[in-house]
Amino acid sequence: MQTRELPESRGYRFKKRVLGEALPNEAMAHQRLGKPTALAVFSSDALSSTAYATEEILKTLIFAGIGLAAFDYVFPITVAMTLVLVILMFSYRQTIKAYPSAGGAYIVTKDNLGIMPAQVAGVALLTDYILTVAVSVSAGVAALYSAFNGLRDYAVPIALMFIVIIAVANLRGVKESGRIFAVPTYGFVLSVFAMIIIGFIKLATGDLHPAPITDPAALEATRNAGLFLILHAFASGGAAVTGVEAISNGVPAFKAPEWKNARTTLTIMGTMLGIMFLGLSFLATKIQPLPNDENTVISQIAKATVGNGLAFYFVQAMTMLILVLAANTSFADFPRLASFAAEDSFMPRQLAKRGHRLVFSNGIIFLSLSGAFLVVLFRAEVDKLIPLYAIGVFTSFTLSQAGMSVHHVRLKEQGWRIGLAINGLGAVATLVVTIVVGITKFTHGAWAIILMVPFLVAALIRVNKEYEFEDAELARDAHNAAAAPILRRHAVFVLVDKLDRSAARAIQYGRSLMPSDLRAVHIATDTHKSDHLADSWQRLGLSRIPLELVDCPDRRIDRAVRELVADALADGQTEVSVLVPRREYRRSWHRLLHDRTSNTIARAVAPLPHANVTFVPYHFGHEASAVTAESAEAPAPAEAHDQVPVGR
Amino acid sequence: MQTRELPESRGYRFKKRVLGEALPNEAMAHQRLGKPTALAVFSSDALSSTAYATEEILKTLIFAGIGLAAFDYVFPITVAMTLVLVILMFSYRQTIKAYPSAGGAYIVTKDNLGIMPAQVAGVALLTDYILTVAVSVSAGVAALYSAFNGLRDYAVPIALMFIVIIAVANLRGVKESGRIFAVPTYGFVLSVFAMIIIGFIKLATGDLHPAPITDPAALEATRNAGLFLILHAFASGGAAVTGVEAISNGVPAFKAPEWKNARTTLTIMGTMLGIMFLGLSFLATKIQPLPNDENTVISQIAKATVGNGLAFYFVQAMTMLILVLAANTSFADFPRLASFAAEDSFMPRQLAKRGHRLVFSNGIIFLSLSGAFLVVLFRAEVDKLIPLYAIGVFTSFTLSQAGMSVHHVRLKEQGWRIGLAINGLGAVATLVVTIVVGITKFTHGAWAIILMVPFLVAALIRVNKEYEFEDAELARDAHNAAAAPILRRHAVFVLVDKLDRSAARAIQYGRSLMPSDLRAVHIATDTHKSDHLADSWQRLGLSRIPLELVDCPDRRIDRAVRELVADALADGQTEVSVLVPRREYRRSWHRLLHDRTSNTIARAVAPLPHANVTFVPYHFGHEASAVTAESAEAPAPAEAHDQVPVGR
Repeated sequence: MQTRELPESRGYRFKKRVLGEALPNEAMAHQRLGKPTALAVFSSDALSSTAYATEEILKTLIFAGIGLAAFDYVFPITVAMTLVLVILMFSYRQTIKAYPSAGGAYIVTKDNLGIMPAQVAGVALLTDYILTVAVSVSAGVAALYSAFNGLRDYAVPIALMFIVIIAVANLRGVKESGRIFAVPTYGFVLSVFAMIIIGFIKLATGDLHPAPITDPAALEATRNAGLFLILHAFASGGAAVTGVEAISNGVPAFKAPEWKNARTTLTIMGTMLGIMFLGLSFLATKIQPLPNDENTVISQIAKATVGNGLAFYFVQAMTMLILVLAANTSFADFPRLASFAAEDSFMPRQLAKRGHRLVFSNGIIFLSLSGAFLVVLFRAEVDKLIPLYAIGVFTSFTLSQAGMSVHHVRLKEQGWRIGLAINGLGAVATLVVTIVVGITKFTHGAWAIILMVPFLVAALIRVNKEYEFEDAELARDAHNAAAAPILRRHAVFVLVDKLDRSAARAIQYGRSLMPSDLRAVHIATDTHKSDHLADSWQRLGLSRIPLELVDCPDRRIDRAVRELVADALADGQTEVSVLVPRREYRRSWHRLLHDRTSNTIARAVAPLPHANVTFVPYHFGHEASAVTAESAEAPAPAEAHDQVPVGR
Repeated sequence: MQTRELPESRGYRFKKRVLGEALPNEAMAHQRLGKPTALAVFSSDALSSTAYATEEILKTLIFAGIGLAAFDYVFPITVAMTLVLVILMFSYRQTIKAYPSAGGAYIVTKDNLGIMPAQVAGVALLTDYILTVAVSVSAGVAALYSAFNGLRDYAVPIALMFIVIIAVANLRGVKESGRIFAVPTYGFVLSVFAMIIIGFIKLATGDLHPAPITDPAALEATRNAGLFLILHAFASGGAAVTGVEAISNGVPAFKAPEWKNARTTLTIMGTMLGIMFLGLSFLATKIQPLPNDENTVISQIAKATVGNGLAFYFVQAMTMLILVLAANTSFADFPRLASFAAEDSFMPRQLAKRGHRLVFSNGIIFLSLSGAFLVVLFRAEVDKLIPLYAIGVFTSFTLSQAGMSVHHVRLKEQGWRIGLAINGLGAVATLVVTIVVGITKFTHGAWAIILMVPFLVAALIRVNKEYEFEDAELARDAHNAAAAPILRRHAVFVLVDKLDRSAARAIQYGRSLMPSDLRAVHIATDTHKSDHLADSWQRLGLSRIPLELVDCPDRRIDRAVRELVADALADGQTEVSVLVPRREYRRSWHRLLHDRTSNTIARAVAPLPHANVTFVPYHFGHEASAVTAESAEAPAPAEAHDQVPVGR
């Protein structure tokens, strides 16, 4: 085929080099994951939050000024949050069974509470996915500079670099292969368990020493802890249980029996998460690591347990990797969720379009840009981002659990009462946490999310209304419209700037349309030039195609064309074709030597119904584009095709 | 007329608000200037350079480490440069007489030395105009912060603001009304003369005291002045004589007898410039102002002469204004010169196009962006910019004077021997200065200009070659081409995504073209969707227009269309029209909800000759765009227009 030889554009070749060959639709297939691999794939988001959850609780308490008392509260708060985790785990076991194909909060809410609540869940989750990218990448960079303090100043560029790497990998289409995930996830789990076990042994043998105090002033108690502060610290710890819903989104990826395997994996993940979180917080009460700008709490715990050596760097490396992978989880979830909303016509439909490598490229790009924006805005500082975090997740938990409760009541399947009890408890518990998070973090930034969510939901509804309006109008009577008779007249205007080969091509094309009215039109911005054109038109015997000179002293060619077309359309029975000669240059820089009046004209005419703009190409240096010159006389405009000698 | 009611685009309304109503061609007229006004209009560039020329000489000497000896050299160097000024003045008196219509270096060089040397003169001048904008605005800001030291930190934004103001004023079309120019120009001349006279009186009465020494270290001599240093300082003073050519560019603006009045004005300007430069440098030897970051030399001279009071602020204000006006001179010269080169096809022709207000808008925009770029790059520091400056001007002086010499030899008009002597001396003198400037400032940045000019000239020649190639190809046999017969076949492909009203519109339009081959084409990226379309096509009895399903598993719609079109074109006897339904939305944000596949398709098909792309508009919410549905059956594609009932 001829086009096979046409070169691909430079942009496309670059795209192919970065992303690989385009994947055909057939390439879309699901890989099935065994439990150990699935655990690695789906739990990085949840497990990685233990890397900063304890620290965030401590920071909330210590920055409030309660001094050493902070270490008395951190463990009980962790226990409370672990209780929420257990409730969530049992709740999601219900969801996995009920929605084995896709049990994300959006689907469950839509199915049980309706499309509008689903938008709230969707917006809450999407904002939280964006925050996950920013938080995880920033925390990953914190793990890096805790090991190499000199990198502290480059936190933002390093974080952005991570985002770019993850984005490109996802645009290429990361296979959920598990292998990439296994090393950091199990490496991190191993590290934390090692820290906990060594910590307990050292504690038993009396070898566990408190971390060196870097900032004694921080430990001076200026006040006592009140209920509000404790709730605030609890809310900060909420970050630990985000990511629990990941498995419920990915049940179809499990090996059969899918939902059973998924449930088991969820239970294992929840148990591991609980032990790690409790263990680290407990060690924190003994080691008393002070949160500071250079070393994370978990890195101080690591130093106190596994020491300063190679093991410490291993822990930091695994922490960094699992955190970066946790950001990757958002890159799997955000585009998929956005595509659901787009398919439901609540978000731009481009988000539902599969790209070059069959992934939702637009969603990936949007997520990376938003995440990068947050990283820059908050300078990759985790504790500035944390107050915004979690409220979205808990909102969607609440909606999803409420949805599940309705589901049980509606379907009354076997054992629905127990299911209702579990999900009802889940809904209440997560609602309480949502309220606690919303109130205690309100002044710390949560207000932004609380304000933004309704605004975004309103925007989504606006988008949906517009799509519905458009679809309705386009569909109305479409089959009759497709058979509508053509208009009485067809006027063709060939825009002529000079009498050259590109104009000649357009005239030739215009004649082949055999319109009822064919005119060459020259917009006269310069009387000298237009006189010259009129002369040569006359002289060359081209007068069978009339040349119309349109006076245009204000040099607004687009407006002059628009007025001309509007006049021709005025009778309502005319189809107008505006033929714009368009030169195609051999090199892209050649195009810079000319203004693109053709685009301006097309835009100017666009608002007029029945005004059709045709670009008639002329190719420089291209033999085939040369119009032939066998006949010296112009045939009449309305002759039939078959009677005309062939041009070449 | 119907379009009168069509609203102007938002962009155009904004443009009109900022720039005023569009001016018709007839509005182009020349205003004539009397000598006093002409002096104000044309001399701001030249006279304003006395605000920094002495300082630049001093800086070169003092930064080299010759200490107090600098004040011994500054006056002799000024005398030498004034000599160059006198030679230039007499040389340009000749040019004005010989080229009363336009005597810029580009025209004179082109006329006498040829088109290629003219490009060198052109490039040299254009780069210097850009530098003038950066230097003058930066020096103007320096005058401002010499009075208000707190503004030092905001030098760059203030300079950029000045550029924006000047650019907008010029885009509006500044009338060379003289009134705007008179105040700062005469105010500045008055100030400098007052400073000189008061200075001399104080000197006579013994009241002239040296400026306070801000930085004693700067006055420690670490070396002696050598010839190279003195030449370098001389080169730095070269900035003073730039702008002398301005009057020769604007002779037609003078009242009759134009050239005589222009000559007289030039002589007055040259004399004033000489006196001011000599006077300020002489006072500098007595006041010994040390160049520093906070106060300009001229501001220190002002303090020592007119004192610290209101008069001081008046001097600073006038200095700032004339400097900003000097930048404005570039805004008059650069676009005009660029338009000459563009008309000669050496620069992009867009630069020769008169904009909204009959000015060369593209040139103005290009100049402002380039000037702004330099201001940011050099952080509005005058002495960093100065080394780049002057070399261009002196190159063009040399070419222009050499051209005048050739002119005299060639025409042998009355008194040509004297003319030859004067211009020959001018050519030699400016050549010597060019060489001195090039060598002494080479390592300080002049290398960049010396490297850039040949590169830019080569680029201009490249541009010219491309234009000539294009023009030749377009003109070849154009009149025969315009009469070429049409191709044997006309295939029309209507791209159909769904069977909706926008597709219906395109089908209706396609039928009105009465092609030999009309097909609806659906690019099938999703088999479910394409099956559905094929079904409804069949069911609705649309089968008289065949529907072609093109399999496209890699979802590259543009490529699939291109291959289809290329196949149809393969016989070389077919004209192809690709009809792309294009939805026109009611609000601009609605467009964001859809991807613009239509543009992608147009771009993909563009490389194919005889592949014409038509956008068939569908207007949402627009009654007139609705296709009618009177006839339920599709007429055959090739029926004649007149037999078809009218649609509405």
